[in-house]
Amino acid sequence: MSPDLKLAKLVVAGVGLIGGSFALALKQSGRVGRVVGLGRTRASLERARALGVIDESADDAAAALAGADLVMLAMPVGQTGVVLGRIAPHLDAGTVVTDAGSTKQDVVAAARAVLGAAWTRFVPGHPIAGAEASGADAARADLFRGRKTVITAAPETDARAVALVTAAWEACGAEVRAMSAAEHDEVFAAVSHLPHLLAFALVHELAGQPNAATLFEYAAGGFRDFTRIASSHPEMWRDICLANRERLAAALDRYRGELGEIARMLAAGDAAGIERVFAEARAARNAWLARIETEERK
Amino acid sequence: MSPDLKLAKLVVAGVGLIGGSFALALKQSGRVGRVVGLGRTRASLERARALGVIDESADDAAAALAGADLVMLAMPVGQTGVVLGRIAPHLDAGTVVTDAGSTKQDVVAAARAVLGAAWTRFVPGHPIAGAEASGADAARADLFRGRKTVITAAPETDARAVALVTAAWEACGAEVRAMSAAEHDEVFAAVSHLPHLLAFALVHELAGQPNAATLFEYAAGGFRDFTRIASSHPEMWRDICLANRERLAAALDRYRGELGEIARMLAAGDAAGIERVFAEARAARNAWLARIETEERK
Repeated sequence: MSPDLKLAKLVVAGVGLIGGSFALALKQSGRVGRVVGLGRTRASLERARALGVIDESADDAAAALAGADLVMLAMPVGQTGVVLGRIAPHLDAGTVVTDAGSTKQDVVAAARAVLGAAWTRFVPGHPIAGAEASGADAARADLFRGRKTVITAAPETDARAVALVTAAWEACGAEVRAMSAAEHDEVFAAVSHLPHLLAFALVHELAGQPNAATLFEYAAGGFRDFTRIASSHPEMWRDICLANRERLAAALDRYRGELGEIARMLAAGDAAGIERVFAEARAARNAWLARIETEERK
Repeated sequence: MSPDLKLAKLVVAGVGLIGGSFALALKQSGRVGRVVGLGRTRASLERARALGVIDESADDAAAALAGADLVMLAMPVGQTGVVLGRIAPHLDAGTVVTDAGSTKQDVVAAARAVLGAAWTRFVPGHPIAGAEASGADAARADLFRGRKTVITAAPETDARAVALVTAAWEACGAEVRAMSAAEHDEVFAAVSHLPHLLAFALVHELAGQPNAATLFEYAAGGFRDFTRIASSHPEMWRDICLANRERLAAALDRYRGELGEIARMLAAGDAAGIERVFAEARAARNAWLARIETEERK
């Protein structure tokens, strides 16, 4: 971590789970002076201030942004472009802007379109942490500890801006990885966006059955874990799915192909084929689990 | 629970997670005298004995079964018919037989075919408890506490046999529910067998991608929970899927239809439609969670 990181003024736009946890972690690290919150509703800003997540809230973007070292945008990705447009006229020449959105190509395109000269001081980021809970009440200083944050800087992104955002995430306890925005969106379509879509789809399908009450009555622990992510925020995940819709659609197509293959095995009574799919899946998952458990013990 | 339940001799065929936990729970309840294990391999029986899960192991089915009050069959459902055939000639006139298989119509058909007059003393059962771990080492006396066990007796099943098996499960701390074998298999195709198949399919599909190593590197907590059941036993789940293949295929068809609908929404950029699916899913899941958490607090 950069020993020099000191943010006199941090602006957090969207003081929910992610923005709030970022603020709390930086406060706890002692690297931030004042945290100013910007948000959609007065009530949520008041709540964040009461919780000590932010030091003050601002109605006026110009006043909030004056002299800011860093602006963190932490809202559903569908709103990031709109907020970027609102803050763009008020950014100081030295202010670095970053985000925490779950998709990156759409955010990069929006930033490039609206930030003008400040575009090179925009550092796209995505912390790989979260929970199905949301709001400032769910924020906690250790949310990012030991987790990865992906930064998808463009070739023209200012190196000092990248260094500042990297240092901020490291101060939160995160491990920073670099990746292109395109690769990011492909990877997360497969390992995050698709599983969320599949979990929502299963619960939705069962809830629409005539015997739904009986079905849920007998659903047990495996179902509970499988569908945990179907308790995620619908608006946030609608935005993510649409922002990354081409890559998500491709991942969904591949998965539907896999299900078609398994349906054929079932119809044919292909015991060896089914066992091979299941055994390969278990081996891959257990190897992955062993790796991450080794990393967690480090 | 019947205050009269006393099993002088319990035979457990298949001393793994389920059979072993059943034995441990009954031992702890003080309702069983001697527990005799039957199994595929000497090593696993020796291990179960060393762990105190069973009191003795038997090579010879006739000796094991002589004078048994209850025989519990706890093995992958694909083997239940074979084991029923092996024990049938050695059953005493008073011995009750039950099973713990995850599918019921196939087990009922096998029992009816091979048990002869003893068929009316066969009580099909399914404890709704488990874990991705397997083997006698994973067995524990509290596995069934507060969980449901479904009993799918046929109209001709002996009422005293049903009462004995019900009392045994209640002694394990389980809540016993009655259901027809057909309804059981339809419900569990939807809430258990399908989710397992979907989780295995996702991990298998990702593991086959050229960038699989990168994909798994960025998979996080949501993926971990979603795929927990893909670490389940491949042979056991192959058997379940094939034993219940018609109902599972129908559930899979419905789910593939749901995915097709969502794919069309994604292609059309139907934000309202996607949000509606996600919001309805979250509402249904959260209502279910609230109900089971209320039950757990009772």
